[in-house]
Amino acid sequence: MELKKVEVCVSPALYPYYENPEAIVVVTDVLRASSAIVTAFMNGVERIIPVGTLEEAKAYKEKGFMVAAERDGLVRDFADFGNSPYNFTPERVAGKQIVYSTTNGTNAIHLASSGSQVLIGAYLNLTALANYIRQEKKDVLILCAGWKNKFNLEDTLFAGALAQLVLEDDHFGSICDGALGSIDLYNAAKGDMMGYISKVAQNGRLKKNNLDDVIGYCHENDLTDLIPVLNGDHLLVL
Amino acid sequence: MELKKVEVCVSPALYPYYENPEAIVVVTDVLRASSAIVTAFMNGVERIIPVGTLEEAKAYKEKGFMVAAERDGLVRDFADFGNSPYNFTPERVAGKQIVYSTTNGTNAIHLASSGSQVLIGAYLNLTALANYIRQEKKDVLILCAGWKNKFNLEDTLFAGALAQLVLEDDHFGSICDGALGSIDLYNAAKGDMMGYISKVAQNGRLKKNNLDDVIGYCHENDLTDLIPVLNGDHLLVL
Repeated sequence: MELKKVEVCVSPALYPYYENPEAIVVVTDVLRASSAIVTAFMNGVERIIPVGTLEEAKAYKEKGFMVAAERDGLVRDFADFGNSPYNFTPERVAGKQIVYSTTNGTNAIHLASSGSQVLIGAYLNLTALANYIRQEKKDVLILCAGWKNKFNLEDTLFAGALAQLVLEDDHFGSICDGALGSIDLYNAAKGDMMGYISKVAQNGRLKKNNLDDVIGYCHENDLTDLIPVLNGDHLLVL
Repeated sequence: MELKKVEVCVSPALYPYYENPEAIVVVTDVLRASSAIVTAFMNGVERIIPVGTLEEAKAYKEKGFMVAAERDGLVRDFADFGNSPYNFTPERVAGKQIVYSTTNGTNAIHLASSGSQVLIGAYLNLTALANYIRQEKKDVLILCAGWKNKFNLEDTLFAGALAQLVLEDDHFGSICDGALGSIDLYNAAKGDMMGYISKVAQNGRLKKNNLDDVIGYCHENDLTDLIPVLNGDHLLVL
């Protein structure tokens, strides 16, 4: 039996070296885009249109769409709100379409579309994701959104958590150093995840802008079974 | 006092996002190029000319130079030898100039030349490197040669070992997730380094070609105080 591959790509800039048209690509941007997207679907959003540039986001706004857009953690003036998961309340998003642009997450989603399927991953839907991938028995590539193409720890830890769960199934294997390293980092951190996260660079960035209230929430496991999936130009629930 | 930065870049493809003209850049390719280069200087080589392409290496060979050249771990037919550190014996290299081209290492050296100084790092000269950097009190960027631009564990572990030693000096600090993650991986691995390295992808590649005899040697600490440094187009001893 040929094992299905589990790989982790720690930065969007490395994606070309991992690209695999057969793979399910899981995009993660734990602090905060992928946690916000999962939360929006938990709260009933109908679809999310991820756009790369602020110009595209602005053009959608002018056409009457509700727009979430931030750069460097800060909401843009033309947007309805930024990318704290707490912004995506049922009152605001239920039954709606939202256009979404972030520093790192939306670009990673667009890159990932060369895979066989693009899913959005966060701790909030961790076990549901792992179960779906194990059931599909396809190669999986976990793509960390990172920070401006740099390696980041919070996404790498999540990648380790997901890779480890998938690898518990004997149909999967990994000789990817990115996956093995991520798993080891996750296991080193998981005993005191909040202590660990307090030292990562993104924690400092969020704190500086008083945006760190969501860090605990973004590390809660399995609040939902919903898995956002890319369908053409927009995200739906799988 | 402004702290000098310690950063780790886990792949040459990420170098543009870490580039710092003030930084000492330490290039590492533990299995095997940087270990081979350090060994060559231990054995009395006069200078090493790192070249990126096999065409350049071949052109030097035709001009009468001694050439070490490999791709994917295998020595090229026109070359005098490949990049096992065991090839760089005193009989072969003492007092000589050698042209050197490898899959990952020589490209990383060329990239790094945008820094203020380029040093070659391996476990073989680990403490000497850390001492030199601490004495210089400059920013330091540790550049992992990786494997065809992918993240690799053996270089990342070395980066963690070096970053940790440098950070013991209060003049240095780090908010780089690459550095923090590397340090954690190194500390997770160091109790049984050979056990850990047995699972990395490069171990498998070397084993397949019966080239894994050098893995233990490449993880020996502090066999020398010599530090190879880039001087124009060639490496000398600092």
